[in-house]
Amino acid sequence: MFIETCIAPVNIALIKYWGKRDEELILPINDSLSMTLSTDEMCAKTTASACATYKEQRMWLNGEEVPFEDNPRIMRCLKALQRLALAKCESLKFPLEWKLHIVSRNNFPTAAGLASSAAGYACLVYTLASLYGVQDEELTAIARQGSGSACRSLHGGFVRWHKGEASDGTDSIALPVVTSNHWPNMHVLILVVNDARKKTSSTKGMQRAVETSDLIKYRAKQCVPERINAITEAIKQRDFQTFAKITMQDSNQFHAIALDTYPPCVYMNDVSHAIVAFVHAYNAAVGQTRVAYTFDAGPNACLYVLKEHVSSVVQAVQTSFPNDAASSVEYVKGIPVDEEASPSASPTDAILNGNFVLPTNEHNLLKYIIHTKVGAGPQRLAKTDSLLNSSTGLPF
Amino acid sequence: MFIETCIAPVNIALIKYWGKRDEELILPINDSLSMTLSTDEMCAKTTASACATYKEQRMWLNGEEVPFEDNPRIMRCLKALQRLALAKCESLKFPLEWKLHIVSRNNFPTAAGLASSAAGYACLVYTLASLYGVQDEELTAIARQGSGSACRSLHGGFVRWHKGEASDGTDSIALPVVTSNHWPNMHVLILVVNDARKKTSSTKGMQRAVETSDLIKYRAKQCVPERINAITEAIKQRDFQTFAKITMQDSNQFHAIALDTYPPCVYMNDVSHAIVAFVHAYNAAVGQTRVAYTFDAGPNACLYVLKEHVSSVVQAVQTSFPNDAASSVEYVKGIPVDEEASPSASPTDAILNGNFVLPTNEHNLLKYIIHTKVGAGPQRLAKTDSLLNSSTGLPF
Repeated sequence: MFIETCIAPVNIALIKYWGKRDEELILPINDSLSMTLSTDEMCAKTTASACATYKEQRMWLNGEEVPFEDNPRIMRCLKALQRLALAKCESLKFPLEWKLHIVSRNNFPTAAGLASSAAGYACLVYTLASLYGVQDEELTAIARQGSGSACRSLHGGFVRWHKGEASDGTDSIALPVVTSNHWPNMHVLILVVNDARKKTSSTKGMQRAVETSDLIKYRAKQCVPERINAITEAIKQRDFQTFAKITMQDSNQFHAIALDTYPPCVYMNDVSHAIVAFVHAYNAAVGQTRVAYTFDAGPNACLYVLKEHVSSVVQAVQTSFPNDAASSVEYVKGIPVDEEASPSASPTDAILNGNFVLPTNEHNLLKYIIHTKVGAGPQRLAKTDSLLNSSTGLPF
Repeated sequence: MFIETCIAPVNIALIKYWGKRDEELILPINDSLSMTLSTDEMCAKTTASACATYKEQRMWLNGEEVPFEDNPRIMRCLKALQRLALAKCESLKFPLEWKLHIVSRNNFPTAAGLASSAAGYACLVYTLASLYGVQDEELTAIARQGSGSACRSLHGGFVRWHKGEASDGTDSIALPVVTSNHWPNMHVLILVVNDARKKTSSTKGMQRAVETSDLIKYRAKQCVPERINAITEAIKQRDFQTFAKITMQDSNQFHAIALDTYPPCVYMNDVSHAIVAFVHAYNAAVGQTRVAYTFDAGPNACLYVLKEHVSSVVQAVQTSFPNDAASSVEYVKGIPVDEEASPSASPTDAILNGNFVLPTNEHNLLKYIIHTKVGAGPQRLAKTDSLLNSSTGLPF
């Protein structure tokens, strides 16, 4: 039996991917750019094993067995990796006919809308590549065919997914912009929002946008290329002000495109918009841009904050979005927040006396907060970290 | 003493006005197109009087005295009308030095965000024109300088505000597309939504959009001209399907532009978006587009429905947005709704069993509903309708 266990990170787009030019190969209409989050707080973990005695391909995701050979996206990734192994390896570690058992888990709630499929497919592809013994630049193009943004989770730091020009997608790959060591004090607060509405899936939402939005064409052709260049420069310079402004503008534009779709797609809710208003009020109160928001295809906010401002921002969030569980360790997860914010750095009063008004006076609009930071790409783990019992071939 | 009393209608834009190329003259960056609502349900009413004995210019709006000569927009309209009187009238009815007393009222809540300033300025200009004895095509260009969309309230039926090319704004005028008799069964349901949030004013919102949105340029140049032509044709053909789709698309695009503004402007709330979802679910359930929504710079929905479907739509609204006061006459205002909807025409069950999910199960998300229809332009009223006591020169 051959067995490999790896982890892969979540990534959050700063310049958003929205719209495919090829549904099957998952080729986007514009470049996108993301930051990879540390695997210490959030990651997908996958164990893949191949064995001569396995009778069939089996897969378990978050504790439940799921279809394997019936899932075209998984099979597309697997086939591509097998072709790569045949082409690149001098000798195969084991025959390609051997069946696989794969166990995968996310250590964060899938339902929270936190790009779980991106981390999941990146981890699947990275683990299978380790299992077959291939390491290649083509991996991002393979992960892309599982879930578009998964390609960006194969690198750490800041990552650019180049849309590419080729019709077969071979140049639609993700490349690192800077590594995770370049801007190590870039922290992230994820505000998980309570929400009951039924959402249009990303796949359907972007398909409908390409078909019905007039503005999406202009965005892809005109706005995104300028923004990608400008934010790349800001990242290289560690220019938080510019970085933050472009990030917020692109989040807003992505949701504008979703709204310009017919029928419209609405991913942010009143609480999301209250967070946006809070961020602008906070930045105005402190006289500089210290926080940037971005929202994916869901209501949760991802706030970018430099390490030195995290404590002050968390305090302001707690005041503006009171939660009955605020003091519990379950409420602020991840990297511990230093409680000692210097009083002069706290803009809470300014915000409360300013023009920021919550939509309601309700408590508990946020479910919980995750505090994390920029991180590295996927990693191979030791045999002791396996999710699969090698004597039974089944999940632990 | 000379005295005139007039009423002017509210208009609701189908193709939205958003963005000025000249802040002072109120010249828009794109054409817009609206429907004028019947003055039977909603109107502004103004009495203007001129008297040799008045000591100063005075004005009362909705029962409170407001500044007159300190208000640059009112003074701009007044001066323009006086210039017009001098130029066009063989003899003036009274010397221009005579002071004015003006009393104005809206018969609908100003705070409901129902384009009160458009009706108000249209009424002011129309009443002053009557007082000075001028009738001229230039009136719409004068009303425009009070409040941009006011120019469209000077005509009935469907009205197009041509953005014009001249830098002095003389060709930025509103012209009728078809009169109110062309499509008399075009009815409107205004769903007034409870909302607590502080909004960015239209003036500031559109100013910021022109400064910061990339998409607004493309909208004004590319999208609006195509839509104006297409909806004009649909109105002429009484083609409700096309009319409805363009109306909904343009409402969505306007709010997309507001969101693409930095910082973003958000005018719709979760209830507004629930109404959007309701309309699409209703239309899907009945298998044709019977309802179209449009939202201005606020959370209230304006639904376009042909007369024959009003009762069925109201019934579905009542089911999906339950209100404890639903049976009260105060809840559904305006034209009485025929209670006898044919049972086969009611899609309520289909909607409830369909994919439409309210954001909450809360009751009373709507404040009230106004039922009205397409209507005529401003009208002169009799002396008995005056809002001003001619013996005191003060409001009744």
